[in-house]
Amino acid sequence: MTKPLLADISHPRDFRSFDPLQLQQLVDELRTEIIQVVSEREGHLGASLGVVELTVALHTVFDTPNDRLIWDVGHQAYGHKMLTGRRADFTRLRQWKGLNGFPSREESSFDSFGTGHSSTSISAALGMALAAEQQGEDRQHIAVIGDASIASGMAFEALNHLGTTQANVLIVLNDNAMGIDPSVGALKDAFAQNSSEQSSLFASLNIAYTGPFDGHDLPLLLKVFKEQKKQKGPRLIHLRTVKGKGLASAEKNQIVFHAPGKFDPLTGKLNKPAKQGKTKFQTVVGKTLMALFAEHDHLMAISPAMPTGSGLVALMERYPNRCLDVGIAEQHAVTLAAGMATQGLLPFCVIYSTFLQRAYDQVIHDVVLQNLPVVFCIDRAGLVGHDGATHQGVFDLVFLQTLPQLTLLAPRDEVQLRQQLYTLAAVPPKGPVAIRYPRGYGGLTEWELPFESIDYTKGTCLKEGKGTAVISVGTMAEEVSEALQQLEAPIAHYDLGCIKPLDEALLHRVFTRFTQVLTVEEGSLVGGVGSRLLSWANDHGYSLKIKSLGVPDDFVSHGSPAVLKQKLGLDASGIAASIRTFLTEDETCN
Amino acid sequence: MTKPLLADISHPRDFRSFDPLQLQQLVDELRTEIIQVVSEREGHLGASLGVVELTVALHTVFDTPNDRLIWDVGHQAYGHKMLTGRRADFTRLRQWKGLNGFPSREESSFDSFGTGHSSTSISAALGMALAAEQQGEDRQHIAVIGDASIASGMAFEALNHLGTTQANVLIVLNDNAMGIDPSVGALKDAFAQNSSEQSSLFASLNIAYTGPFDGHDLPLLLKVFKEQKKQKGPRLIHLRTVKGKGLASAEKNQIVFHAPGKFDPLTGKLNKPAKQGKTKFQTVVGKTLMALFAEHDHLMAISPAMPTGSGLVALMERYPNRCLDVGIAEQHAVTLAAGMATQGLLPFCVIYSTFLQRAYDQVIHDVVLQNLPVVFCIDRAGLVGHDGATHQGVFDLVFLQTLPQLTLLAPRDEVQLRQQLYTLAAVPPKGPVAIRYPRGYGGLTEWELPFESIDYTKGTCLKEGKGTAVISVGTMAEEVSEALQQLEAPIAHYDLGCIKPLDEALLHRVFTRFTQVLTVEEGSLVGGVGSRLLSWANDHGYSLKIKSLGVPDDFVSHGSPAVLKQKLGLDASGIAASIRTFLTEDETCN
Repeated sequence: MTKPLLADISHPRDFRSFDPLQLQQLVDELRTEIIQVVSEREGHLGASLGVVELTVALHTVFDTPNDRLIWDVGHQAYGHKMLTGRRADFTRLRQWKGLNGFPSREESSFDSFGTGHSSTSISAALGMALAAEQQGEDRQHIAVIGDASIASGMAFEALNHLGTTQANVLIVLNDNAMGIDPSVGALKDAFAQNSSEQSSLFASLNIAYTGPFDGHDLPLLLKVFKEQKKQKGPRLIHLRTVKGKGLASAEKNQIVFHAPGKFDPLTGKLNKPAKQGKTKFQTVVGKTLMALFAEHDHLMAISPAMPTGSGLVALMERYPNRCLDVGIAEQHAVTLAAGMATQGLLPFCVIYSTFLQRAYDQVIHDVVLQNLPVVFCIDRAGLVGHDGATHQGVFDLVFLQTLPQLTLLAPRDEVQLRQQLYTLAAVPPKGPVAIRYPRGYGGLTEWELPFESIDYTKGTCLKEGKGTAVISVGTMAEEVSEALQQLEAPIAHYDLGCIKPLDEALLHRVFTRFTQVLTVEEGSLVGGVGSRLLSWANDHGYSLKIKSLGVPDDFVSHGSPAVLKQKLGLDASGIAASIRTFLTEDETCN
Repeated sequence: MTKPLLADISHPRDFRSFDPLQLQQLVDELRTEIIQVVSEREGHLGASLGVVELTVALHTVFDTPNDRLIWDVGHQAYGHKMLTGRRADFTRLRQWKGLNGFPSREESSFDSFGTGHSSTSISAALGMALAAEQQGEDRQHIAVIGDASIASGMAFEALNHLGTTQANVLIVLNDNAMGIDPSVGALKDAFAQNSSEQSSLFASLNIAYTGPFDGHDLPLLLKVFKEQKKQKGPRLIHLRTVKGKGLASAEKNQIVFHAPGKFDPLTGKLNKPAKQGKTKFQTVVGKTLMALFAEHDHLMAISPAMPTGSGLVALMERYPNRCLDVGIAEQHAVTLAAGMATQGLLPFCVIYSTFLQRAYDQVIHDVVLQNLPVVFCIDRAGLVGHDGATHQGVFDLVFLQTLPQLTLLAPRDEVQLRQQLYTLAAVPPKGPVAIRYPRGYGGLTEWELPFESIDYTKGTCLKEGKGTAVISVGTMAEEVSEALQQLEAPIAHYDLGCIKPLDEALLHRVFTRFTQVLTVEEGSLVGGVGSRLLSWANDHGYSLKIKSLGVPDDFVSHGSPAVLKQKLGLDASGIAASIRTFLTEDETCN
């Protein structure tokens, strides 16, 4: 039996002198290790499996970390991390204080640029290359970017700039015809053509094209990169790879094995945890829209490259002309929705909270300012957990509630989300509406109640009480309810329901009847809902005591949602503890 | 003498049956009228002059407003407005309650989509075209987009989607090789090639290309559009036009005549108002950076297509490798800066407040989260005036102050802005910094004082007082100072200076010494600085009376900055009136 190689590698210099057979062995070990680790620890699988040969070839040929290597999106960097001194850390992959699931400058000098959101790598590499020119540094700058990511607007902006420079940037186009879902767009079709087509496409942008090459042919990759190492200037190498390469089930079912959860590393059989009959909010959206689309022809749905994650796959299959995946194109997605809305359609634009940041201007300029009826379904709002700081949806309440004319809803549970969607379909809104809901499972076992039109601008009293009231935002209602069960005190609980406009009648009732109010939200405290309620109370002459719980003024790292909530004091125990302190303070004051 | 035609036209149907000579006469009258109106009323000139033939041809051939016509950016739509019933309204162009300088759905059914920011038209047209398919409507959808705008990321996202559809979208590429400044980017070079090059570029995206044509040849345009009217599907017509066409000085000096202010309509001689020796904040930035670049090699500057507006032209000429215009590419601009910052350079990323909304995710994900030293110079912060709701910089304080790790400055005058820039260059910051400043002239006559390093995290007491204090944000210090001069009361005045982190020592002093505090900011009240100070006071147990002045929860329309400030109560008189009320209320309370 051959001696294992991977275990002794803590830096690429440890394998740069390997012979071709050893390098191939390293590839095989790395692939096995990735499968093993992800099967146990969960995380992103398919993307990393697809770039194992590429990862070994790049680190063998180039002088990393002096040569700068950027992994676009970054979920494909597990092999890169294992080869650069972080193999042992995979036992705590994506756990609190453990290894980040994405490249991170804090974690290693080999991670030249932190990623997480797509399509940033060419801009960052160009910035580094222009810096090298300015500083007289001679080094390579390599951006590895997928075919779905390079079709995003900001990547095009970077290409358009790069082509006017002499900057030393090598783009490695990792073309597997997939994002998380299959890639879409005209560019993708162009990539599938013969090389002269692509050459002419990139030639239009003044970027030298070479390829396509088999991205799993290690000797070929080594040869290609050795040639590239001698070159300078803007250039692109086109590799064709297979997402999930090396695990049959992952190659076959690429969407599921993008991030499959736990599975059997040999058979690829998924190990789905039982969920006690509970339902993901994403499923609630998808199934509800499916029912509503059947009734109402004016409904449309738009997803920027996230149909699977957003629960829209079945809807897209049933209504291919009404439920559209536009690719990684958040800006376009929002303005496309605005265009539809001008013609009397009601588009549901389904976007993750942090990806909506990509389309903030379009939300303001194209939708809200024109007061167009577009429904933003803001998925992954609040703490998302293992994906970490790049993905925590903690700013949307702030950047949306400041916008005039926008109705902003935060349903407290699956039923409320469902009835809000129903009401919006049945009684088309006069202007824009945003609904934020979290990643993952809700707390209810039954949520498919008969459709019922509701007044979504009203909050709800969930529990009567006296002296102290808690106002919760969205699904924090559940944690607050649990917290109140842990306490003996007769504390009232209100679900704010509608963030904008505020339910002023409810607020007058609460601020009149109670001497102190605690607000609880899964979002930034600075500029958040709590601070808005404080301002409202101040404007209306209330001087009761108000305290707010939420996400403090700091980025929230990766970890399980439960751990994150606990660290931030936003789990039931933490909230109960805050309430106890609050009550004590109040007694002291009195 | 021929009878004038333009005066009798209130709808395109009034000239659709004109013969070719009459149409040419209409073109000539329209061009003269645009020159006349803009010379008196100010506004955007060059873009509208460049599309006079195009405007007449489109409205002659197509069945507007049933056929949907979208003017990208929209500052070229003056001729369009004059031909669609709004000629008389040009007496109040860009004035309060007067004609909008951009297309506006509220203003006319001919304005299919409101514009103002660039590169939205293809997305919107595609949304309308997909709606038409869904609704069984047969009509044309026309997006007129410039060569600078089509190079922006979101336009590419739209093209990439459009090429996969059969949607009935006609793109008219109005190629004048200019944005406000000369266009940049590899795509621009491709547009200058022969037609087979361009055909292949758009063919890669599956969009049929025809052209290039002379965009000032009216008979040719009529012929081309008559052919296009019979066609369907995604297609692009490439027109070459001259910005400022028909006014010699505007053709010659296209940058100045983009929006030239008042001028002589016959000679084109500019009628620059004397400014009593005062200086634009943009000039302060440009001249200060010029001095700092000479001293410090690690400084870079980046502008997304706004070097002239941002005061960077001289810097760009002097340091072409260090001061970069990246085109209409805000997302790329920010991440490019992040890449530079990773290598020890200090980039000054100069972006208008509302255009920074286009790069919000890049600010968060690429710069702030990685704590990279990038200096954002946020131009046009606050009320910009005549450009109206699409350009009012009223959200940046909100969406930036919620970001952890960001230092956010609002200099109160030119000197403070200059010394902040100096200090950042001399003592490189450890993380990201944003400096917001308004459009136009400051109040000082002397500002080029000797460079001095300052502690920009500290606020300043501008006037002592007792009982009541005013805390102003940024350049509102000037209006507050004037207001206090109108009042006899001994009211104190503090300049907050640094918005984040807060100068807590100053706040403790103020909140301890005074019984009531008024905050004044040129930005949204919801989530603004006033609300943050209220939260801070609440968190620290202060129960003094706090009231905030700023922009209420509504979009602010166009008008002169002075009128807008007056309407919002943010001019000196308005602030004085608020203070009087505040004082009276306080006496009532006591």
